[in-house]
Amino acid sequence: MTDDVAEIARRAGERLIVKTDAIVEGRHYLSSDPADQVAKKLLRVNLSDLAGKGARPLGYVVAAAFPDGVSEAWIAAFARGLGEDQRRFAVSLLGGDTTATPGPATFALTVFGGVRGRLPRRSDARIGDEIWISGTLGDGALGLRVSKGEFPGLPPAAARALVERYRLPEPRLEFGRLVLPFARASMDVSDGLVADLDHICQASGVGARVLAEALPLSDAASVLLAEAPELFAEVMTGGDDYEVLFTAPASSAARIAAAARKAGVPATRIGYVGRGRSVRVLDRNGQAIEFGRRGYRHF
Amino acid sequence: MTDDVAEIARRAGERLIVKTDAIVEGRHYLSSDPADQVAKKLLRVNLSDLAGKGARPLGYVVAAAFPDGVSEAWIAAFARGLGEDQRRFAVSLLGGDTTATPGPATFALTVFGGVRGRLPRRSDARIGDEIWISGTLGDGALGLRVSKGEFPGLPPAAARALVERYRLPEPRLEFGRLVLPFARASMDVSDGLVADLDHICQASGVGARVLAEALPLSDAASVLLAEAPELFAEVMTGGDDYEVLFTAPASSAARIAAAARKAGVPATRIGYVGRGRSVRVLDRNGQAIEFGRRGYRHF
Repeated sequence: MTDDVAEIARRAGERLIVKTDAIVEGRHYLSSDPADQVAKKLLRVNLSDLAGKGARPLGYVVAAAFPDGVSEAWIAAFARGLGEDQRRFAVSLLGGDTTATPGPATFALTVFGGVRGRLPRRSDARIGDEIWISGTLGDGALGLRVSKGEFPGLPPAAARALVERYRLPEPRLEFGRLVLPFARASMDVSDGLVADLDHICQASGVGARVLAEALPLSDAASVLLAEAPELFAEVMTGGDDYEVLFTAPASSAARIAAAARKAGVPATRIGYVGRGRSVRVLDRNGQAIEFGRRGYRHF
Repeated sequence: MTDDVAEIARRAGERLIVKTDAIVEGRHYLSSDPADQVAKKLLRVNLSDLAGKGARPLGYVVAAAFPDGVSEAWIAAFARGLGEDQRRFAVSLLGGDTTATPGPATFALTVFGGVRGRLPRRSDARIGDEIWISGTLGDGALGLRVSKGEFPGLPPAAARALVERYRLPEPRLEFGRLVLPFARASMDVSDGLVADLDHICQASGVGARVLAEALPLSDAASVLLAEAPELFAEVMTGGDDYEVLFTAPASSAARIAAAARKAGVPATRIGYVGRGRSVRVLDRNGQAIEFGRRGYRHF
């Protein structure tokens, strides 16, 4: 595995890519989570991988191991969730397999996408490229903590917005299709900005400088960070963003901005590609910010 | 789902098909089964679906949920089994996802195949077609019972041969590629001849007559059936055959026989397609044989 998305070599036309992901009840979601949301998130995180490569979804297959004694209502809600998102994202179920398990519910979803032209890889970043991100960062990771009851003082509208982003990520499919033809390296952010940008750096043999002040935040995240600035580390490393992270030459900036406007999703320049192999996040004074396990500090 | 294999529509060249299958420890295999054989069977049963459509394997992805506390040796043996069969069947791992589970090991494998020309579907059988099967029937189902300690009087060589067929089915990939261009309806037999032929009948709106005397048996199965003729029901309904079942016009018979010789796997005519919607198995007197749950009887 040298990439998070695999291409099946084709002789002509669209390139076909495939991604698979498994989730286990109690590990990747709570037993109490609504079944339709479990299904939707499972599909969406895979669609986000397609978005990160500029692919259009061609279809998916799902293998479901339902626990012995699962209710028909749960299965029906799971199927309804998939059906609703199939229509929303214009993707079809191509096949599946259902079995029973004495253990927790376990689902594996495999999604296929088609890419016209060049497939942007993790290893395509070049020194001098600008680093871009779609949408806003940190909402998913903050939403997880809000959903656990943290930050009770947060205004209800902001709390709802963050929890919603955690529960139902929005795969940036149109953004990816319209913008990524102008990109070099690209992937979706699921493990956190720092970790996924590090994947690009390692694969490309480059370093990255990220300007902390440039990071796009939602209104809800801004409200929360104004009260608790130490949560900035969560924004950078928390994961569950499902935004498109990419690099591009500076000469592409105008076309990227225009394509992002067409997609209706902001694209923000957050840094640049340089020498070295590491991801460095710089504050307004150009000082590197180091992320520990539970926060960050200046050096 | 109207077929056991899904095609992703392509604009040109080879058609791409995909199949997914999940297995759960303790349900689809025993905890004591060797890990490399678990992996190989998982891959082979999916490759058999490709064989049943005349496809060449293009690759596969696997999502693995390993139980908490699984040994590294078990995982290494599982990976070694996949690796050996990848080389044997010239198929590559395109991607995967590994997670941990508090429950039993659960694996979902998705395989991709390419088909040149027409894709033979379940629904393509026509009245007057002949019904064919590759290889021999019943070995897998009988092998399962032998592996449970039944039929202790069976000669050891025969016992070994049957158990081997159960543990490691042989996907008929070359047979499928060479023979199926001359077929109409086609699929692989995994649920048992009667059940899978019934799938073809329902999808095609036809009936089937199978001549019991024509069924191809291995030497090992013949030895066992000579002692215990009631096991004939097991041959017809037991499943785990992983042979290619297909229908074809009588005018294709010579080309099918020649292609099967080239593949080195016997092809046997076992009946014909007629009116109605049911599968009828006829004895040498043309009497229908009815299969109960635990055997068969004449009517």
